Amino acid sequence: MQNFADRLWGAVQEKNSRVCVGLDPYRDRLPPYLLETYERPAEAVEQFCCQIVDAVVDHSVAVKLQAAHFEVLRGDGLRVLWSVADYAHSRGLLVIVDGKRNDIGSTAQAYAAAYLRGDRGADAITVNPYLGIDGVRPFVEAATESGRGIFVLVKTSNPSSADVQDLSVQTDTGGKLLYQHIGDLVARWGEELIGECGYSAVGAVVGATYPGQLAELRSRLPHVPFLVPGYGAQGATAADIAAAFDDQGRGAIINSSRGIIFAYERQGSAAEQFAAAAGEAAAEMKESINTVIA
Amino acid sequence: MQNFADRLWGAVQEKNSRVCVGLDPYRDRLPPYLLETYERPAEAVEQFCCQIVDAVVDHSVAVKLQAAHFEVLRGDGLRVLWSVADYAHSRGLLVIVDGKRNDIGSTAQAYAAAYLRGDRGADAITVNPYLGIDGVRPFVEAATESGRGIFVLVKTSNPSSADVQDLSVQTDTGGKLLYQHIGDLVARWGEELIGECGYSAVGAVVGATYPGQLAELRSRLPHVPFLVPGYGAQGATAADIAAAFDDQGRGAIINSSRGIIFAYERQGSAAEQFAAAAGEAAAEMKESINTVIA
Repeated sequence: MQNFADRLWGAVQEKNSRVCVGLDPYRDRLPPYLLETYERPAEAVEQFCCQIVDAVVDHSVAVKLQAAHFEVLRGDGLRVLWSVADYAHSRGLLVIVDGKRNDIGSTAQAYAAAYLRGDRGADAITVNPYLGIDGVRPFVEAATESGRGIFVLVKTSNPSSADVQDLSVQTDTGGKLLYQHIGDLVARWGEELIGECGYSAVGAVVGATYPGQLAELRSRLPHVPFLVPGYGAQGATAADIAAAFDDQGRGAIINSSRGIIFAYERQGSAAEQFAAAAGEAAAEMKESINTVIA
Repeated sequence: MQNFADRLWGAVQEKNSRVCVGLDPYRDRLPPYLLETYERPAEAVEQFCCQIVDAVVDHSVAVKLQAAHFEVLRGDGLRVLWSVADYAHSRGLLVIVDGKRNDIGSTAQAYAAAYLRGDRGADAITVNPYLGIDGVRPFVEAATESGRGIFVLVKTSNPSSADVQDLSVQTDTGGKLLYQHIGDLVARWGEELIGECGYSAVGAVVGATYPGQLAELRSRLPHVPFLVPGYGAQGATAADIAAAFDDQGRGAIINSSRGIIFAYERQGSAAEQFAAAAGEAAAEMKESINTVIA
């Protein structure tokens, strides 16, 4: 069973891309003609996502499905999420479910089974660490047994992430900030899962909107791969994320969601051109990132 | 639009019950005959949950649907979750979705729409505070506009909750433990949503497995209603949760999941009697709790 991190860097190398495309199909921003074409919003969402997949497949290594934007479809939500995930897999993309799941151990086992076990399932899921190791271990075990990965929230990209994550805490290894402590825990939780590439299948979510912390965490956590949100619509640029990478251009994938999938709005393209616009935006992002790491 | 906390205490008073029944339909513990009767596991889960609802409706005020155990059904998961939620509503129960959702603001809006808005939807959802106010505000806004509620994780019931939640932190109001700080934030986030009953629609999850902290938080957070997991299978008893209530017997609902829904295993009943056994267990739990608050 190949380690998730090795699969990830294999894909990065093969495509020379560090781009993860976030599938956040905000219903009120879907091209109107799609909503008119299909009887159910769920079908429009599915079509939208699959056409984005086709458009970005050559420029990205992974898609990140934002669970919330599928769950808002209520009963259809997970059916569409898995249908899109299957399609992305069929096109050779890695699939990350951004669910930020978390619960007590017995329940985390069910989440791990839901997302990281079995023939289908995701390649990785995002996990929230507020419950401590109990709530994370089942995901790590599933990742170990199935060659999948997790990304644990460390420093998130939102403006108020400091409310909790930047608190000064006392730990058994001294005083630090909470996100640093969580980062250290993530490194420890993943130390048995380091692949040949030198990175673990247990990664961290670190927002591009905090470039200083991103650089600091890159050197603090040399074996932890980063999933970096916040690029594009949230304001971060290629310069902001340069420090997420090691000197071989590995160690992170950068996610953009709205900046890619709704590029047609920004470009003033016709709604019918949404997929082509997304493909161009993903290609540009790939190049911008490759320029800063070169 | 009636405040969620007022609706909750109205139900408590009417039924003289503080019991929330957790619907955690672990697939490997479902009565085997149900799995044999239905072609799809999802249908067995749905039947199981709806029969539990019928059995416990007179002894409980709410059901708490553990999202993980529905999501493990993959594409069928949310269809079954909402079907069970609708059925519980039709029987007059409040519905709490235990999803511990959390994300940046724009995504939290989608989660809030998924669970707390519209004609159907849940009465309340559990929320993880790791992202700070950005990730919570959309849920509070939805709760305000739709008469729903949220329960924010403060001190969870699992053994490792201390890993993160019991860290000593420095805040602008002095040194405290992280869970105390989160509790204080929850009180502040909910201060505009206090109903006639004196409690807010913004509640907290506080585990019954930490009775000392439960008592401390009850007096620290006089307007915050508690959803208290950990009773029964996780080891907490009625004596452990007495301090969750104010002197009028309000301020908390106590959840038991496996201890009720799988009572037939413990009682050595036939699997076909699972619903009757659950009804008896819920009735006993109601009485045990009412005894300690009297």
